[in-house]
Parts: sequence; structure tokens; C-alpha cells
Amino acid sequence: MKTLNIGLIGTGYMGKCHALAWNAVASVFGDMPRPQLAMLAETSQELAEKKARELGFERATGDWRAIISNPEIDVVSITTPNAFHPEMAIAALQAGKHVWCEKPMATKLADAERMLMTARASGKVAALGYNYIQNPVMRLIRRILDEGQIGAVNHVRLEMDEDFMANPDDLFYWKSEASSGHGALDDFGVHPLSLLWGLLGAVRRVCGHMARPYVDRPTPSSGRRAVETYDIATVLMELENGASGLLALNRSAWGRKGRIFMQIFGSKGTIVFDQERMNEVQLYTADGARETQGFRTILTGPQHPPYDRFIPAPGHGLGFNDLKVIECRELMRRIAGEQAHLITFEDGIQIERTVDAMARSVYEGRWVEV
Amino acid sequence: MKTLNIGLIGTGYMGKCHALAWNAVASVFGDMPRPQLAMLAETSQELAEKKARELGFERATGDWRAIISNPEIDVVSITTPNAFHPEMAIAALQAGKHVWCEKPMATKLADAERMLMTARASGKVAALGYNYIQNPVMRLIRRILDEGQIGAVNHVRLEMDEDFMANPDDLFYWKSEASSGHGALDDFGVHPLSLLWGLLGAVRRVCGHMARPYVDRPTPSSGRRAVETYDIATVLMELENGASGLLALNRSAWGRKGRIFMQIFGSKGTIVFDQERMNEVQLYTADGARETQGFRTILTGPQHPPYDRFIPAPGHGLGFNDLKVIECRELMRRIAGEQAHLITFEDGIQIERTVDAMARSVYEGRWVEV
Amino acid sequence: MKTLNIGLIGTGYMGKCHALAWNAVASVFGDMPRPQLAMLAETSQELAEKKARELGFERATGDWRAIISNPEIDVVSITTPNAFHPEMAIAALQAGKHVWCEKPMATKLADAERMLMTARASGKVAALGYNYIQNPVMRLIRRILDEGQIGAVNHVRLEMDEDFMANPDDLFYWKSEASSGHGALDDFGVHPLSLLWGLLGAVRRVCGHMARPYVDRPTPSSGRRAVETYDIATVLMELENGASGLLALNRSAWGRKGRIFMQIFGSKGTIVFDQERMNEVQLYTADGARETQGFRTILTGPQHPPYDRFIPAPGHGLGFNDLKVIECRELMRRIAGEQAHLITFEDGIQIERTVDAMARSVYEGRWVEV
Amino acid sequence: MKTLNIGLIGTGYMGKCHALAWNAVASVFGDMPRPQLAMLAETSQELAEKKARELGFERATGDWRAIISNPEIDVVSITTPNAFHPEMAIAALQAGKHVWCEKPMATKLADAERMLMTARASGKVAALGYNYIQNPVMRLIRRILDEGQIGAVNHVRLEMDEDFMANPDDLFYWKSEASSGHGALDDFGVHPLSLLWGLLGAVRRVCGHMARPYVDRPTPSSGRRAVETYDIATVLMELENGASGLLALNRSAWGRKGRIFMQIFGSKGTIVFDQERMNEVQLYTADGARETQGFRTILTGPQHPPYDRFIPAPGHGLGFNDLKVIECRELMRRIAGEQAHLITFEDGIQIERTVDAMARSVYEGRWVEV
Repeated sequence: MKTLNIGLIGTGYMGKCHALAWNAVASVFGDMPRPQLAMLAETSQELAEKKARELGFERATGDWRAIISNPEIDVVSITTPNAFHPEMAIAALQAGKHVWCEKPMATKLADAERMLMTARASGKVAALGYNYIQNPVMRLIRRILDEGQIGAVNHVRLEMDEDFMANPDDLFYWKSEASSGHGALDDFGVHPLSLLWGLLGAVRRVCGHMARPYVDRPTPSSGRRAVETYDIATVLMELENGASGLLALNRSAWGRKGRIFMQIFGSKGTIVFDQERMNEVQLYTADGARETQGFRTILTGPQHPPYDRFIPAPGHGLGFNDLKVIECRELMRRIAGEQAHLITFEDGIQIERTVDAMARSVYEGRWVEV
Repeated sequence: MKTLNIGLIGTGYMGKCHALAWNAVASVFGDMPRPQLAMLAETSQELAEKKARELGFERATGDWRAIISNPEIDVVSITTPNAFHPEMAIAALQAGKHVWCEKPMATKLADAERMLMTARASGKVAALGYNYIQNPVMRLIRRILDEGQIGAVNHVRLEMDEDFMANPDDLFYWKSEASSGHGALDDFGVHPLSLLWGLLGAVRRVCGHMARPYVDRPTPSSGRRAVETYDIATVLMELENGASGLLALNRSAWGRKGRIFMQIFGSKGTIVFDQERMNEVQLYTADGARETQGFRTILTGPQHPPYDRFIPAPGHGLGFNDLKVIECRELMRRIAGEQAHLITFEDGIQIERTVDAMARSVYEGRWVEV
Repeated sequence: MKTLNIGLIGTGYMGKCHALAWNAVASVFGDMPRPQLAMLAETSQELAEKKARELGFERATGDWRAIISNPEIDVVSITTPNAFHPEMAIAALQAGKHVWCEKPMATKLADAERMLMTARASGKVAALGYNYIQNPVMRLIRRILDEGQIGAVNHVRLEMDEDFMANPDDLFYWKSEASSGHGALDDFGVHPLSLLWGLLGAVRRVCGHMARPYVDRPTPSSGRRAVETYDIATVLMELENGASGLLALNRSAWGRKGRIFMQIFGSKGTIVFDQERMNEVQLYTADGARETQGFRTILTGPQHPPYDRFIPAPGHGLGFNDLKVIECRELMRRIAGEQAHLITFEDGIQIERTVDAMARSVYEGRWVEV
Repeated sequence: MKTLNIGLIGTGYMGKCHALAWNAVASVFGDMPRPQLAMLAETSQELAEKKARELGFERATGDWRAIISNPEIDVVSITTPNAFHPEMAIAALQAGKHVWCEKPMATKLADAERMLMTARASGKVAALGYNYIQNPVMRLIRRILDEGQIGAVNHVRLEMDEDFMANPDDLFYWKSEASSGHGALDDFGVHPLSLLWGLLGAVRRVCGHMARPYVDRPTPSSGRRAVETYDIATVLMELENGASGLLALNRSAWGRKGRIFMQIFGSKGTIVFDQERMNEVQLYTADGARETQGFRTILTGPQHPPYDRFIPAPGHGLGFNDLKVIECRELMRRIAGEQAHLITFEDGIQIERTVDAMARSVYEGRWVEV
């Protein structure tokens, strides 16, 4: 495996997360060349230089196209606001670079489809940032499902709740503008759907509903402005595999901080996961003596790879940022031609088509095929 | 308050529960005449006599009409299979007796409507058995809502899950026959809807989905028979108060034993309740220092009436049967002309109409007004 | 089994609990004659009559000796303050009655020893009220231990915490007087020790410590009075079976309401129980695939007798008062000459000797043999 | 702040953890020069070179003294087995280097005292690796205590349990040899004591007990060898501040993976922490309406610094390795002359003296002053 030269566009929440991952991946996994943190782009040269120093990148630029045109760059991390993803990803792929773009692909489905076309044409790895699927717990759940430990899955419920939009007194900002999307549905929906996609496959039909907890919000000028997006969404689903499903999203859910709650019901057992306790999973299997059946709380440990690459002792806990390191490793494996667990543009488009169908079902007030 | 003479029809799960409640209510509350357990009806004289001895009733009959025609009986507890409710309740009301009938009112909405008409005409108390609303936790939740502690409610999620239909190898029995109803929807739905009714009021529009985890089941003769009911149901709701709602029901949910999970989201906080931990409720309020905000686990105690009538010390725990004692007390208060917290036929019909609308929305594949 | 005539002395917290149990036991278990609630004693004739009406007793007396001298009474429930237990229990036993006396036996070990001598001489059943051991969960734990599911037990930790003495601003009352005993040690200690006794047997050596969270408390006359008892106690134990043990007690533990927390460690697994969630027990066994090992949360149900006598469905929950009904049933079985699970005076004295040894170890600042 | 040149001795569990921290600290905190990972020592040149490549160190050596004698090295991370700490730390300090040595200081108290003397004489920073105190939760707890939110602390219970010695069929290895120390007491004890030290200060008197769950273990040659250490320890404590304390340690506790359980009781509230859920803390305060008091589950977020340096969104979770990054940052601040939260040799010796007193109390069977 050759040394990869990395370009990073954007240094916000996810930009820093990518930088930490590129920085840590070789030390954690110990079996691949250390990536070179070659070039970082921000909105100005000055900010870019400051961030390059902080995050350990060699060079800095105020123009993201300098990364695209730099022939030494092998991989581009794209962590800018969603609206910029299509232009940047397409440019990078066309310039022959691998792309690691934060989810979702785009704010419009048509743009996402263009990104996919470009990726296919390029022959390069085009991966999306979907941290949660990289949790060793998810690998364990897949294994439990594959081994039939809970039998045939017949029902799944997914919830994702946070409270950053819960305060009605918070000022109106862009997340309440229609141009930002539908609301919780596309802001959150892709996350639980990425878990669903990886564990249970595609969605066939959907029927959704959206709601506004607050009809308007204060503006800085002491006025009020009507909220255009929907902070709450609920969706009935039928999966391709025949299972019935439910999706509930709320970004105004007081007290929920990073909750992704998943309940998978099968003919022999049940799995329950809560992202706020990301190092645990609950498993119930209908075997053994009835007197002692119960949900088992499984704590992650070295027996749940690649936890072992981080810590040799069980129960010590991975963090959210560690998931990005795992994703980075999977990306590098894919670039090296190995099999890897990643949401590529091919998978991502399925997720975004599903979200799109959900939105249509809401606006049309009826069931819609994905 | 005069001494009430009680007639009990049926001695199964709920019949015994009624008997225990009639037996205990005076000792627990200590401020009303002890009801006389006057007459018990079962399917045969022999069984009735056996059960009367066990449950402390004075007389026994193999013919439930003997209770109806007995002029000394003031109240009739009806705990027979649902299909018998209409005939028995109507007869009792017409005979001038108060009725305490187990939920649901009937297997057909038209029958329930007839029961309501009769109740209205009789002027007697016609109450339904809805234990869960009697939990002191529910009284606390109502108070939290009334005091605005979580602000205006904008979203609610209700789940009810058990696993008595979870084993695909269990023999086909009547709960899988179409004549028993729709499945989980009417079998379970009324319970969470009774909580919703008491806490947040009526439902306006619904759109549901139902699923069969197992298409057929073994028969005693080693064959297989197609399952006609749906063990899983999911419903989107719009409430009269404008809140968005979600209902999920599963009677084949491995590991869930008596779970009724409720999440109520408001503009200032969130309430979470799980019936499997019926002596606890979670409350999050967005006040105080941000560093120490979190969901509070409130354990019931004497500060949550009428817990204090059972146990003077907090944290010791009520049981499911205690809820029936509270319901019995509320019924007696209503009979005595006091205000009481009860699901009467007037309320019950709303719940059953809601379930009926849900079923129609499923079969018609569209949103339906309740 | 003949009909038992019951006398009840005292109608406070535990008196009411006994009355509820005597009232319910026949209906719950359904296979024994209904006890006659014959006579109730309180401190005045007037109060006794009021309570007899409330609790369903036929006759009332202001003099407890009237119960003792009544030849029709078969069993006497003694639920008065601890200091009265010896005189009443001894009188009842000498009068040829069975005794069901609330724990602890006495405030002084010498009195307890006299009670035991009298019980032995009488040939009557002399049982103590130790509700917690009657939880179906405890029967399950015993079975798990007996079947060797967690192997040989080598360590046990017991905690009991409540917060009724936690407020330093509460007025001085008798529980802070030396005459009431040592403090948490004897007030609480007997409860976890009763679980220990039933599950793991006797204690061999102890070394304890006691502490006063508050040196004095306000008096009604605006003064302050020195606290003479110890609201906190901690004890190291060696059990007869060789296991190491730990006991921690705190009646000024803010937020703990009825917590009895027990951790039992064995060579093959671990059991964890929390009385505040009395319908659950946690079990870890070191078998099966390592990837899916974890603590199982077992919810009680009909598979855990005698839960089934109360409710035929699992996960619905028993309450604290139900435990007394079970104890009552065990007492009746013992009186009928059957084997029963009870803490008799023979067992109770072991528990009180253990507490006494713990107190001595504290005052002498050293290890003491029980 | 100048760029620090780092030397690392040892690359096992903690060596890798140090390397990850040195590698990440600048990117996470973004306000200090990136440390140079200058030189790594392992037991052979070959292994050292392999590990240097993996962990990103520039140079490698098979002789740890090469790090000591390298004048460019500013800080030495010592992560070798405990027995090597004294020689290495003393050499590094005498060579004028700052030292970051994993806990405990030494296997013998006399060696630890020598290390402290050397550190004092050197004027260099001599810090110990005590990850758990760096959890943002601990900073929150300190703040809660300092602000008097739970009033005056009067009782504390600490437990630390894991199960790596729980299997009686595991082969005898060095942790069962007397030369490795007392057992759980010194292996685990320093961790909870480091929390205690940081939150509540010093311990005054102790009385302990130790136990062997298994008297012997199999050897590779199919024989059995007597276990010389104690996998279970329990200790009564009196703290300098007057509070009563309890310490319980078990490294054969099936099902416990990384549990450090802490209960702090005060005159106004209670704090509960469980390291297996390291992103949560429970807080009970006796204020507000009694009806809604309860333990709050506080999830960490940006409001709990330095969580915000890792992730800007709450509830996403830090991992065990992140704690080391925080510790690394604190060390760098101390080296730069700033105030920092660290366990130095000055603090560490207090912890080890406390453990030593506990061991003496066990062997002498009596209370011992620290």
C-alpha cells in the first residue's frame, strides 16, 4: 500500500473529525503507511494556515480548487456545507482523486445522481461519511443477524432525536429555511437509514408525516419569522425483505442529545441499540431456560473488532471520533483494493432516494414507492 | 356512602383481578364501606362455587343472568371474553346496575355504540377497566403537563410490545383468527390510547400499517393454518391539539413482556415512561444550569397519591394489581356522585372509534379522519 | 387446613400491611380456607374500632391482652414498635398462639433470646416479618445458586440505602436517640442480612464502622440536640462458606428510597439485584459465545412462582405489599405442617446476633467473631 | 510554548495509548505546538523500528537509555511493566527530562519514595498516568462539589471490578505471584483512590480485608499452583475530611469489564458514577418540588470542557483513549508553567501510601493510620 497524500476541504465539526482520523489511523491500526496530511483548504488563506498548523497539515490554501489541481493529492476529504458537496466531489473525481465526502451527498437528489454518475465514470473510490455504521456494535449486530441468532427479522423501529432545535426562544437560523431541506427528515433521516441499509437492506414503500413544533421563531431584529422546515418527521416503511418498519425523527426533542434508538425484532429474538450508549447493545434470544431469559447488555471489548485496535481491555469504551478512524481505515482498504465496509455513492444514493420518497409521501399525503 | 353489593361475571385473568380489588379496596383506602362480594357467575354452577370459595364471594351461579336479575346487586364486574361484553353490559345497565366492564367494550364498533346508548339511558355508572391510567405515575404526568413543566406538547410516541405471539412454533389459536379482530391494533391499541386520551386528548387523523410476522402457524393435526390477524401495527397520528403522534404495537416482540413505552415531547421538556418499570418516570426540563440538565428518574412514593394509601414509604413499589384497586376506588367514588378518574363508556367509545379509524386507514391504505 | 382466626396488634405501616395480606391471601392463592380477621388491638378502644372497620376485622380492643386471652384466636400478628415485641410475642406464644412478629425481634439481644426460648417451649410457629425474602426474584436467585449457574460464590456486597434521615434540617426525633439502637446498623442491617441468610448462609467474622453525617439536629424549641445514633454503617464480613462480604447501610442517602442492592460474585457468573426495581434481576453467566455475553435483565413473570398466583402475564409487576401476601401464605403453610420459606425466631436470632457482633466490632474497633 | 520532543519507552497497552495521545493532542486542542514524536524504545531494535513506523516515531532504539541520553528529548513517557518504573523515571529525571510515567509509581513503596525525592530535586514535571481523573465528568463532579450542590460530603463508596481473573480454569500467570504485589488492592486500588484524591482529598485511617476466590490455578504442565495474591479486597476508610468511606475491588468479577462505581453522599444530594458508562453521571439534589425529585442522568457535551475540543455536539461520547489526550494536554500545560490537573509524583505517593496502609491493615487484621 502506497502512502496516500490527503487533501482536506473544510475544518468545521466534521473537518476536524476527518483530520483527527487521518492523523490517528496509522497508529491505531499499525499495518499501513501513515497518510501524509498534505493540504488543507479553508475559506481564506489566513484561516487555512491557522487550521493547517492546528491540525497538522503541511500546506494551506484559501482556494479549494488548489487541492483539486494538485497532482500529488490522492484523496480529498470534503466536509463543507452540504450545498457544496456536488461541485467539489465532481471536480475531485474528475481530477482522478478518491473522495471521502460527508453525508448527505447533496441537498437535491438530482445533484446526488450526477455525483454518482461521475464516480462511476472515474473508477475512483467515492465514499460517504457515515460514522455510526462503523461502530463495532454494528459489526456485531450484523453478525448476530447473519448467524440467525434472532431468526428472520420482521419488524424494525428507528428513532433519531436531538434537542438543538428544541428551544422555541432560539433565533431563526438557516436550518429553519426551506432552502436547507425538509427538516429533520433529510437532516437526520440518512443516519438511521444508513444503519438500516447496512443491516437489513433497502426500503420498498413509505408513508410519512412531518410536523412543526414551533410555527415561527424570533429574529435578531425582535420580529418573528415563520419556520419553513419540519423539525419532526415520522414514517411508516415496508422493507424489501418484507419487514415492517418505522422511522421517527425529532430535532426538537428536549433531553435527547445524540440518540439513535434501534429496535430489531426477529422470529427468535430482539436487538436494541441506543447511540447515546454507543458501547452497549441489548440482545434477547428466546433460548435456554425460560426462567432466566432476558435482554443481555453486551459491553464492547476486544472480542468486537476493531475495538481491539484501540484498547486491549474490554468495557473501556470507544468514542464518537474513534468511529471516524475506523471509517478512514475502511476507506484506505477500499483504495488498496480490499473489501471494506463503507457507504459509497452507490449505497448513498439509495439512502437519499429513500429520503426523497419519504418527503414526497408527506407532501402528497399517501404511500409512495421508493 | 352505602354498602355496595357486587356481582362478578368471569374469573379468569381479569376476573380474579377484579375480585382482589373488591376485596382490598376498603382496607387500602379506609374511608368507605366494605363492598359485599355478593355473587359470582361462571360457566357452570360447580366452577362458580369453587371460585366463589376461592375469591370470597357469598353466592355462586352457573348462569350470569342470575346476577342481573338479583335485585340486591348494585354493581356488576364483567370480565368475560370481549364478545360477551355487549349483551352482559346492556342487560346489567337495563336492570339498573352500575357496570365495570373490562376493555375493550366490544369486538364490533356498532356493539360498543349500543352499549353507550344503553349506558346513557340508564343513568348508571358505566366504567371500563383500564388499569394503566390509574398508576400514580400517570397522575403525576398529568400534573406535570397541567403545570406546563414541559411546555406545550408537540409530539408523542407510544409503543406497546409483548411476546406472547412471538414464537412461530406455537400452535394456531383464536388470536390468529380474523373473528378475534384485526390483531395487535385492537388487542393492544386501546391501552396506549387510553393513556393518550387521559393525558393529551383526542386523535384527529390517522394512517396505519399492519404486518404479519408469520404467515401461518402449526395446527394440532400437524398441518399449518394461515394467520388471519396482524401481530404488528404502526400508525401515524395527528392529535386534536395539533401534536404529531406515533403508535407502534407488536405482540410478537421477543423479550418485551409488558412494555408500554411513552415519550411526550414539549416545548420545555420531555417525559418518558415504561410500563415494565411502572414505579418510575423520566422527566427532562430545560431549566437550571446547562451543565447539570438531564433526565430525572422519579421513583414513586407517598408524594404521588394514592401511593400513600398502599405504603407510607417511598420507593417500595406498587404492583399491577394495585392499579385495579385504585380503579375500583375511583368507580366507587363515581357511584357515590364524586368526581373520579375513570374511562367511562363515553370515553371508551372515543378510543374504540380511534382504533376503528386506524384499521380503516390500514385496509384503505390512506389517511383517515377519526 | 382449618380456618385460622387472626388477631392483629398495631395498625401502622406494617399493621396495615399485615391486614391487607390476611385479607388477600385466600383469594390470591385460592387453595386454603379464608382466614377470619377476628380481632384487632390498638392503643384505645376508639382507635381500634375505627381501624377494625377500615381493615375488615370483626372485633376491636383497646387492650392487646384481650387478643392473647381470647381462646378463639389462632395467630397473632405483632406490628407494634420494636420495644413491645418481646412482651407481646412471649405472651402470645405462652397462650398457645402462633406468632407473626415484625422484624427485628427486639431492641436488645437478650430479649430476642428469651423470645426464642419461649417459642421453642411453645411448639408454635414463631415467624418474623421479612418481606424482601419473599420476592419471587429471591426464589429465582436461590435456584440459580443451587443449580450452580454462577458456580461457587466467593464474594457478596450488600447495600441498603434510604433518605428519610438525609435532611440535616429535620427535627431531632427518636431515631436519633441512643435508646432506639445503634442507628442504620440495626434499623436496616437485618434486611440485607435476611437475604444473605436465605441465600448464602451464616456470617463468621465481622469488622464494622459507623458514622454520623450530622452531629446534631434542631429541636422544636429552636435549640439543637446531639445525635446519638449512626445513620451510616459499613461492615467487612467473612461468611461461614468462606466468601468475603461487604455490608453498607445509609439512612441519610439522598435519592435512595428503598434501595437494597446486592451483588453476588461466583466462579461462573454474577447476580445483581436492586430492590428499587424489585421485579428485575441481573444475571451474567460466563458461557456461550464471548461476543454476546452480558448481564441479562430478567423480568419476573409466571415462570417465577408464586408470581403466577397474582398475575398470569409476565412483566406486569408485583408490588411491595404482594410480598407480604406471599409471606402470609408461607406462614399458613408452616402452621399447616408443610415446609415453608420463612424467617422463624430460630433464623431471626442468627441475624440479630450478627448485627450485635457488628456493633461490638465497631465499638471495639476490631474484628469480632459472630 | 516550544515544541516538545517526545521519547516513549514501551509500546504495550499504555505505550500505544501514550503514542495516540502525543499524536492527537495538538489537533484536538489546536493551541499549542505539535509535539515531535522523536524516539521510541522497545526491547529490541527490530521491534522498536516496527513500532516506530506504526506509531509515527522518527527514531527507534532497542535500549531505553538511548532516550535518556538523547539531549533533544524533553519528555519521556514510561509505559513499561511497573517494576521498571523507578529505574527509568529516576534516570530520566536526573537527565533533566520531564516524566510521564504510568501508574502505579512502583511495586515497592520505598522505590516510589525515591522517585519522589528525585523528582523534587530535578525541578522537572513528574506526572503519573491516571486517565480516569481526566474524564470531563470528573471535572463536572468537582464543580458540583465545589459549588456545594450536594452539600457537605459525609460518605463515599468506591468499587472497581473487572473479570480478567474470573475464570478459575485460566492458567496461573504472574498476576497470581506474590512478587506482583498484593493483588486487586494495588492492581486496582490506585484508580478509585485517584478519583477520591482529586475529589475528596486524603484518607486518614483504613481497615481492610482480602480474599482469594481460587486457592490454586492450573499450570501449563497440567499441575496446579497455589495462588499467592488476592483478587478481592474490601476496605473501610475514614477520610481526612471526616467522611466515612468504603472501597471494594474485585478482579474476578464476572461480567464487570471496566467498572469503577462511585457513590458520593452529601447533606444536600448524591452523585453516582459508573466508568462503564463514562459519558454519564447521576446527580440527585434535594431541591425543587418533592414530586419530581429524582436522579438526573447527565450526558456529557460541550458544556463539560474539554469535551468541546473533541466534538461540538453533545451526547456523542468520548472514549477511553480520549482521556489520555486530555491528560497529555494537562501535562503540556504544566510543562509550560500553567496550572494543570494532574496526578504528580507528589500526589501519587499519597495514593500509594494509602494502598500500603490498606495492605498492612489486612495483614495485621486491624485499623491502620495512613
